[in-house]
Amino acid sequence: MHNAFLDNRFWHSLVGAALISFLVILVSSHADSPASSGKEAIRQVLDAQVAAWNKGDLQSFMAGYWKSDNLSFFSGKDKTRGWQATLELYQKRYQAEGREMGKLTFNELEIEALGPDAAWVRGRWQVITSKETLGGLFTLIFKRFPEGWRIVHDHTSG
Amino acid sequence: MHNAFLDNRFWHSLVGAALISFLVILVSSHADSPASSGKEAIRQVLDAQVAAWNKGDLQSFMAGYWKSDNLSFFSGKDKTRGWQATLELYQKRYQAEGREMGKLTFNELEIEALGPDAAWVRGRWQVITSKETLGGLFTLIFKRFPEGWRIVHDHTSG
Repeated sequence: MHNAFLDNRFWHSLVGAALISFLVILVSSHADSPASSGKEAIRQVLDAQVAAWNKGDLQSFMAGYWKSDNLSFFSGKDKTRGWQATLELYQKRYQAEGREMGKLTFNELEIEALGPDAAWVRGRWQVITSKETLGGLFTLIFKRFPEGWRIVHDHTSG
Repeated sequence: MHNAFLDNRFWHSLVGAALISFLVILVSSHADSPASSGKEAIRQVLDAQVAAWNKGDLQSFMAGYWKSDNLSFFSGKDKTRGWQATLELYQKRYQAEGREMGKLTFNELEIEALGPDAAWVRGRWQVITSKETLGGLFTLIFKRFPEGWRIVHDHTSG
């Protein structure tokens, strides 16, 4: 009887433990899943950037970037560090005397999750102004922050 | 007595479950840690690439890339897809008639973990040949495979 009591207690304990462990694993594997909601959220950030650009609203376009001194922006051979410096780069290129923002499109977008809080995106960008058509490729690293998904690194070339 | 038995069983079950859950969480959080060993392993892949390049061994250099038709390689405005096509691009640029591989260095390397099985790397590359000095920036996406860490996407510009 004493042994049966111990056995009973043992098995109940084991089943209880196994059940809770299973739930813990289930919850964490769900958090690690390819996160189609993450992809959808990233897609929305990119769509909002394009919409903002095409309204000539550079500040709203910049909302897609991590507002940090550690934001990283590679363009051709040039490295820029920080959100403010990146904004100023865009202003110089697209809002200075004789420049125009034109019409931006992103094409051939591929969004890939790298975990619950990180993803990367590749694609092709094109800006058509009244004078010329600019374009090239980009690679973005996205991270999820309390405020949402933001670009922490942008590498663009063309 | 019956109640005491139930209570006893309940608490043993709960403590057992909590303990196992704690261990499960401990193990998974460890696996999610910044993975300095992952950074070290990635650093070794990059060092091996540089060493291979500087011996003129393009096949060994290519061992750092994911051997897959889905390997992605962006250079300037050009997209290349697949390990074999990427090898052929390097052969055309650096081993064709009148071309040379020269001496490769990677500088300003920053390796950042994005989870237990993913990381990104940015840096500056330089190739010095007898005729010229080439160089630019790169962004790499690394993933961990059973065979080790491999580059799944390379964006280079300069």
